[in-house]
This record gives sequence, C-alpha cells and structure tokens, in this order.
Amino acid sequence: MAASTSSLLAAAASSSCTAISARLPRGAPAAASVPSPSRHSCPSLRASPARRHQSRFVASVAPTMQPPAESRVSTVVDVDLGDRRYPIYIGAGLLDEPDLLQRHVHGKRVLVVTNTNVAPLYLEKVTWALTHNNPNVSVESVILPDGEKYKDMDTLMKVFDKAIESRLDRRCTFVALGGGVIGDMCGYAAASFLRGVNFIQIPTTLMAQVDSSVGGKTGINHRLGKNLIGAFYQPQCVLIDTDTLNTLPDRELASGIAEVVKYGLIRDAPFFEWQEKNMSALLARDPSALAYAIKRSCENKAEVVAQDEKESGLRATLNLGHTFGHAIETGTGYGAWLHGEAVAAGTVMATDMSHRLGWIDESIKKRVIDILKYAKLPITPPDTMTVEKFKSIMAVDKKVADGLLRLILLKGPLGSCVFTGEYDRKALDETLHAFCKN
Amino acid sequence: MAASTSSLLAAAASSSCTAISARLPRGAPAAASVPSPSRHSCPSLRASPARRHQSRFVASVAPTMQPPAESRVSTVVDVDLGDRRYPIYIGAGLLDEPDLLQRHVHGKRVLVVTNTNVAPLYLEKVTWALTHNNPNVSVESVILPDGEKYKDMDTLMKVFDKAIESRLDRRCTFVALGGGVIGDMCGYAAASFLRGVNFIQIPTTLMAQVDSSVGGKTGINHRLGKNLIGAFYQPQCVLIDTDTLNTLPDRELASGIAEVVKYGLIRDAPFFEWQEKNMSALLARDPSALAYAIKRSCENKAEVVAQDEKESGLRATLNLGHTFGHAIETGTGYGAWLHGEAVAAGTVMATDMSHRLGWIDESIKKRVIDILKYAKLPITPPDTMTVEKFKSIMAVDKKVADGLLRLILLKGPLGSCVFTGEYDRKALDETLHAFCKN
Repeated sequence: MAASTSSLLAAAASSSCTAISARLPRGAPAAASVPSPSRHSCPSLRASPARRHQSRFVASVAPTMQPPAESRVSTVVDVDLGDRRYPIYIGAGLLDEPDLLQRHVHGKRVLVVTNTNVAPLYLEKVTWALTHNNPNVSVESVILPDGEKYKDMDTLMKVFDKAIESRLDRRCTFVALGGGVIGDMCGYAAASFLRGVNFIQIPTTLMAQVDSSVGGKTGINHRLGKNLIGAFYQPQCVLIDTDTLNTLPDRELASGIAEVVKYGLIRDAPFFEWQEKNMSALLARDPSALAYAIKRSCENKAEVVAQDEKESGLRATLNLGHTFGHAIETGTGYGAWLHGEAVAAGTVMATDMSHRLGWIDESIKKRVIDILKYAKLPITPPDTMTVEKFKSIMAVDKKVADGLLRLILLKGPLGSCVFTGEYDRKALDETLHAFCKN
Repeated sequence: MAASTSSLLAAAASSSCTAISARLPRGAPAAASVPSPSRHSCPSLRASPARRHQSRFVASVAPTMQPPAESRVSTVVDVDLGDRRYPIYIGAGLLDEPDLLQRHVHGKRVLVVTNTNVAPLYLEKVTWALTHNNPNVSVESVILPDGEKYKDMDTLMKVFDKAIESRLDRRCTFVALGGGVIGDMCGYAAASFLRGVNFIQIPTTLMAQVDSSVGGKTGINHRLGKNLIGAFYQPQCVLIDTDTLNTLPDRELASGIAEVVKYGLIRDAPFFEWQEKNMSALLARDPSALAYAIKRSCENKAEVVAQDEKESGLRATLNLGHTFGHAIETGTGYGAWLHGEAVAAGTVMATDMSHRLGWIDESIKKRVIDILKYAKLPITPPDTMTVEKFKSIMAVDKKVADGLLRLILLKGPLGSCVFTGEYDRKALDETLHAFCKN
C-alpha cells in the first residue's frame, strides 16, 4: 500500500511542475513576487493571453461555468468531477455580482446558513446578490453561534428546523456563508435534508477559501473526535470574494495560512518556496499575494479531489498534520485552538516524525518550523496534551484501517509525501514524547 | 410532467407482463395459487429450469452474487445500480448460512444495529453467522428502543456513540437487524459514519422485507415530518430469511401487506389479482405465499430503483398512499399507528381522490377497499386527523416542488398510476373532507 501510494504521489508531484508555470495570475502581484516561469523547466506550458482568466483545469468547462464578460472574477478553478463538476470563482468584489450566484441557485427558495459573526457583515449583501433583479427567489436565513464547539448535532438540527419550518422543498438551495465550520455544517445539512438538496459555498475565511469549502467534505464533530459524522457532498459552486478577508481577524488569517503551507509541503515545492519569499506580504494582506495563494491552493486541492474524491488514497495527503491536529482540537475542547493552529503544530510533529524516520533532510524540518513560526502559528501542542491523550484520540481517526493508524508523512525532497501505515512505531512514540510534557 | 411520467409508467406497466411469467417461484406454493403462465400472454419468457433460482434481474450478475451451490436461497433479486449493484437473497433459513453474510462483510469489525424486540430473537444467531469459522471478525452491537417514535436524531446518536467508542474504522460494516425503523436508521448511520461505511440489511418484518430494506432510502423523522433527514445509500446486500416472519406479530404482518398491495396497484395488475386470491394464505402465513409475495415485491422495487435511484420521477410512485399516510403518522405522534396501517388508510384516500378526478373506475376503488379490509388494515384515518392537520403536514412532504404538492394517483386500468401536481385541488379538498370529521 505504501509503495503504490508513494509512487502515485511521486507522479503527481512531478506533474506539478508543469502546472505551476501555466498558472500565473493575471499580471504580476504588485507587492508580492510570484514564481517566474524561467525558474521552472516547462516553458512550453506558459500561460497564453487567451488562458489568463482561467486555471488549466477549466479547459473543457461547460459554458455556465464562465463568468460574465465584464466580471471581476480573476480566476475560475474547475473541480472536475464529471457530472458533478463545479467552478470555484476567485476575485475581489464578487459578492457585488448577482449573476455569479444566481446562475447556481436551483428552485425559488434559498436558505443562507451563517453565524453570529458573519451575519452582520455579509448577510444583507448576499441576500441582495441572491434577489437583485430576481423577484422569484425568496431567501431565509439561519444564524448559528460561532465556533468549532458548535459544530455538533444540536446546532445542525437548527438548520433542519429552519428549513422544515420554512417549508423548503427538494428544489431549494442552501448557501453556506462563513468559515469552515459553517461550510461543513451547511454542506452536511444540504446532503441530508430531504436526502439531498443543492448548495453553494461562500467562504469568508482564508481557511475556508483555501481548503474546507472545496472538495465536498462535510460533517460535524463528535465529542470523541473531529468530523466523524458527515458526507461527501459537492456544492454547485464555490464563490470566493477575497474582499471578505478584509474583515478577518489576524489569528484567523494565520490559521488559513497553515493549510496554504500544507499544499507546498505535500505536492508543490515551488509554491512553498514562493510562500517563504512572500509570507510577509500574506500577513500584511497584500491583495495580490493573497489572491495568488488562494488560487494556487484551490488548484492543488481541485487536482487532488478530481483524482480521489472519496479519499481512497491520494486525497488523504491533504491531511498532513491533521491527525495530530485533530487530536489537539478534540483534546483541548473544540474551539480553544483554531483548526489551522492545531494543524500547524500537527504539521511540525509530522515533520519531526518524518525526520526521525530518516525520510527527510533536517533542512526541510527547519524550513517548516521557520515558515510556521514566521506566520505566528504554534509549533508545539499545548501543555495539556499528553502522550496518552494523543494516542487515545488518534485511535478513532478516520485514517485508521483495521486497527492500524495511517499517517501522512513527508518523504524525499521538498514537496513529496506518503500516506502510509508502514512506519516504525518507535518514531511515533519518540515524536509524541518529544512534544508532550508527559 | 404528468404526461411524460404517465407514459413512462405505462411503458413500465406493459413490460411487467413479460416479467411475471418469467418469475415463477421454484415449484408452486403448496397452499397458495400462483399465477399460471397461461394466464398471461408472454409464454416465451416462461422460466426455464436453468433460471429457476433467480429472477430475471440476475442475468448478468457478478459471481459473488451467486449463492453457494447447496444454499437455501430460493431467489436472488439483483438491484442493478451499476458499480453499486447488490443482491437480495430470499429464502427460509438463510441465517443458518454464514457464507451468505460473510461474503458481504468488509473489514474485520461489524456493528449490528437492532432493537429490544429483535435482539433476544436473532442477535445471537446473526452474531454466530458473522463469526462462524471466521475468527478474524469481531462483532459489536447496539440495541435501540423499538418503534417509530425512536426514529430520531437522539437515538441515531447512540449508534455513532457505540461505533466511535468501539473504535470502528472506515473498513467496518454496519448490519441492520430488524424492521423498517432499524434499517432506515442503521443505513443513515452507515452513510454518515466517517462519511460512509459498508452496510448490510437483514430485515425481519414483512414491511422491511418487501419494501424498506431495498433501494437505499435511509433516514430519520423530524418532529414536523417523516423521513425528512437522511441519505440515498445502498447496502452491500439484503438478506431476507423468511423464517423470521414466524415471530412477527399479526399487526406487523398486516402492516407489511399494505406495501405488497401497493405494488399491484401502481404497476403490477397480475400481482394484485394474485393477492386478491391469496390474501387468506398470506394472513395464515403460508410460507409459499409469503415467499412469492416477497419475491414479487422485491422484483418490482428493484426494477423501479434501478431506473430512478434518487426519485426524480418514477420512484415516487412507490409512495402511493404515503403522503396521506405520513401525515397520519406525524399527526398522531410517531408509532401510534404502524407505517403500513397509515399507508393503507392513505392508499384508500389516494384511490378515492383518483376516483373523484374521474381517473379510475368505481370498481377499482371497491377492490382496493375490499383487499385492505380483508387484511384487517384501516381504511380511514383516525378521528384526530382534521383537514387542517392533513394540509399543514402534507405541506412539508418531500414531493412538494416549488410549493406545489405532487401526489401519486391511480389513473387508467388496474396497475397504472401517475405522479403529478396537475390535478384539481377541489378533488383533494373533497377527499380530505370525506375522510375527516372536521
């Protein structure tokens, strides 16, 4: 299993070189440097003017996926899942373009699922976008309490209550307006309401824009583990208005960066190198740098999801650092740490273990720690996490198979990883003891 | 919509003639009469000896679907859903054949979901069947309270609790052992646990054997409506041991017969005529009569589900009487009436309405009432159901589309129906007033 997954990943990693140089954003970012085509060995795939609005994934896209001629959409990433394919629109000011949203609404009734933080900022705007020049559509909303600790069945039931009390039918559309928690819950509610209705993702945090809104993983937490109850259920579209990041707290911004770093480490070395050079621009919210990071992240995610929607192998690599990270989130009580904070510490632990196994050079470990520290993300778990706590929570991780815990570990040069249960248990023990006080 | 569905149904109905004569059970039932091929006009499809163990749906079946050579399986019905196809095994004593079950278990861990009534009768036997000569497999069980009123989120959480506390992973298998409530809940739990694990249906009531265990509709009730939260999720196999009916209370047996009658009315006139002649044998639990009724019901259901898995049209016809029936179940508090009892009264109401619309002859209405009465099923709703109660509950039915309530109504000769929102509202009002005291 390890060997075949490993070679699969190696193939994917080698192809990412050709991808990068075809994916230059429209014009170079003002304040941030983007990778120059000349740094890569695949000049033949350099972006032509005709393709500048779209990533390479969009080549065979259906007409409805194209933004209007005068749209502010700077990138469309196509998630190629056959008859369930869908576009990710990326750009500034997209919530000011009603047509983008309305083309993906099915039926006449919409339920916007959002939270107490996001509703005052964007609910009115989204409602306007859904109904502008579109009197046939009516919009309901349900405003959930904010935070990971409310990603549970009780809170989910409030979505069903609202949908049923509003007499929504199978032809309705659910809209997730918020971060990862809202997207996951709204998606699972859409998957389950009347056995499945349409839904749209409008992610408003960097975490959701670069990762959780794409790929159809939906669900809720159980008190014993993260995301243990849910469904694979794809949206009609993902609409990323990068302007929404203007209202995002710094800590939330950093949380999202943890997932951006992940893409570089598991499959896209040039992207990681770009991040090393541009982390200050990202933290300063330079629009071009953020737009590039979002686009490149979505492209990486879309490519993986299109190959392995239901996580039979490759997709699991997107969970680098997440097994340790989920244990931190569960062990500290959901919400004490943000998801990306836990992932950052988890990534350092996975990197440490990879190094102990002799699978990566010391220099990679150092670069991982450096970039996460620079982003002001934690690089160790909280003191309350003991070795035993890690072990007992990780035992219910979704990547356990027939009792064997499989992990995503770095292996080889920068940008390469494996998903495997074949590793020396001693290395795991040593890492846990190195990072935990007891 | 009505017209095209209608013609679709007409095509299906006409083909059911050819099906019937190919579907004779192995040997004629002792006490019950089965339709003689000579009664139908399609002698060329008469069952040949080589096909006698299988329904026509199994022609292109994969080798793993074949029962062992010496099996007691009398019929295998194939639910043809491409790469998610699965067999329905029907026969007496099938729980005494460990191989049948074991071939469909994935992984080493099994969770049997059952209830307080069924567990004392069959849990030990099923555990034996799962583990006999199979020391690698371990079995956990969760025993839920019995009845429709427990088909809710709180009870569902007990399944997740048990699965997570037992550290089951994605390679586990859930087994539903019980009636429709257990099958629906276990199936939805399997669909949602870790975003989807394998499951097997072992239905032990006639209701579950002829209807709910087949076709992948899973879910739970909401206080405002039946089955409003759930998933389409197919099992690995359905194992129907007809011996389990020996322990079924009379009232439960009659409840299942309501669904058997349904198949005749919507698409299989010869089957309805057979039921008219053999109802006393069914009520007396004649094994051959029951086996034939189960087989024919499963064949009808499998054929419909294979054509329209997610209920875009044709599959809705399986809900004849269910919109009225679900309203009765919801309105009286889940569990006061059994599902089939509510469906029986609902079927009479749908038939009454069809007659008021001028879509069927009076004689069909009379035959529907006669057969349900003979089966000791209710033919009117309970006194507590008012017109207003019916209307408000039916407004959240899953078949409402853009505010329009669509119904399954009989139209044309016996065995023909339509699924339509195009009917005179006056007829619905008249039916409700005719059946309700206020």
